[in-house]
Amino acid sequence: MKNKPLILVVNDDGIISNGISFLSSVMSELGEVFVVAPNQNRSGVSHAMTLDRDIYIEKINDKKNHFICSGTPVDCVKLSIDKILPRLPDLCVSGVNHGSNHSINSLYSGTLHGAMEGTIHGIPSLSFSHLSYSESIDLSGFKNFIKMFTLEILNSGIERGVTLNINIPDVDSAKIKGLKICKQGVGNWKEDFCKTRKVGDKQYYSVTGKFNQQKNDLESDTWALENNFISIVPITLDLTSGKTIDSLKYLEKYDF
Amino acid sequence: MKNKPLILVVNDDGIISNGISFLSSVMSELGEVFVVAPNQNRSGVSHAMTLDRDIYIEKINDKKNHFICSGTPVDCVKLSIDKILPRLPDLCVSGVNHGSNHSINSLYSGTLHGAMEGTIHGIPSLSFSHLSYSESIDLSGFKNFIKMFTLEILNSGIERGVTLNINIPDVDSAKIKGLKICKQGVGNWKEDFCKTRKVGDKQYYSVTGKFNQQKNDLESDTWALENNFISIVPITLDLTSGKTIDSLKYLEKYDF
Repeated sequence: MKNKPLILVVNDDGIISNGISFLSSVMSELGEVFVVAPNQNRSGVSHAMTLDRDIYIEKINDKKNHFICSGTPVDCVKLSIDKILPRLPDLCVSGVNHGSNHSINSLYSGTLHGAMEGTIHGIPSLSFSHLSYSESIDLSGFKNFIKMFTLEILNSGIERGVTLNINIPDVDSAKIKGLKICKQGVGNWKEDFCKTRKVGDKQYYSVTGKFNQQKNDLESDTWALENNFISIVPITLDLTSGKTIDSLKYLEKYDF
Repeated sequence: MKNKPLILVVNDDGIISNGISFLSSVMSELGEVFVVAPNQNRSGVSHAMTLDRDIYIEKINDKKNHFICSGTPVDCVKLSIDKILPRLPDLCVSGVNHGSNHSINSLYSGTLHGAMEGTIHGIPSLSFSHLSYSESIDLSGFKNFIKMFTLEILNSGIERGVTLNINIPDVDSAKIKGLKICKQGVGNWKEDFCKTRKVGDKQYYSVTGKFNQQKNDLESDTWALENNFISIVPITLDLTSGKTIDSLKYLEKYDF
């Protein structure tokens, strides 16, 4: 790459999160950075885009190339490409998320899906998450990994249509054993909604939940993270369950 | 199935949509139906769940087993399972959506992802969409297909972890050539955001877009729909790009 790469930084925790400040600071050592992030926490919004109302962009006056967006992470990427960036960026990075985006969380994560929207537009895109949910976690021990790994991707690229979902275990960086290229682990959330208030006939609930982790094999991100590896799952935009197609072909004979 | 099956009906267009009235009416010929749907249009919310505020359920007094929910389609399914249904349902159906959920739209669709949440909970789950965006479209010509196809799934089941994404072309039912079991077609949206108003430093935009359809092969849902077939894509919860894992293994040697 001859010129300084153009790097778009997004997240779902919002513009004021520690994780995005850290990530944009690391990226500024690699290229020209634009930060476009939600005005509030948009965790759990997956690949949502805003269709039911107008969304705004607001430039932050005292920070170079920083923009607040009232939409989702996917909206941030779409607006960046259409209205903010001088050209299609060389890289889109999302995060660093405060909390896990491995296993089934990859379906719910706004962080990962922000990066996946970058992939849809043909931009090599990375999603970084750290397993601690603490906003005040010190990420500096992972600076070198994030910088050097991103540099490698800037140089070598990623297969078209693939996003990298990178999760970092919640241990001291000195204890990290290495990287594992993984598949998505199997698990699910069991929700327990709690009654909060009743207004007329409307019963309000707040959500709590427990993560049920299935026994995961050595190739899963769950195993890697439990064993102090950084997990990297290549994520596809194609949701087809290819192995299921043949077993359903009998339905084509259906008479209706 | 010996007893009357329990069927959960959800959607993303909201409780008052024509499509969900039609679908719940068809389902009531097959089993005991619970309808739990958003209080407003939640199109494009993908697999979003609500974490930043409490959500409510409100029972509709003059309709048996009908509930309004202020959350997303995924919230509707989660709350139904935890708080509304007498037991885990035998089937979850989502739709009928007014508008396409084929190709890349499967990433954005609240309709499909409501059904996918059912799949996460181990419930055989179907997503129905009709390619017309008109709320007043007459769906009665597809009643027999939806009923008989759903009955087949109630009897034979679906592989665990797989949701069926069913799209119906916008042609008279007499012109339908049959069903095709397909893979997700390739395409993307090119957005064009329009400035609406400016409030202080906040520039507001409304979104419009154009769908770029790539040349799709005979196995894609795009081809099937263009050729008057009903498309059925088996959708996986596992976002791993399995074929990419080997080509990334070299990164495991990375020294950071």
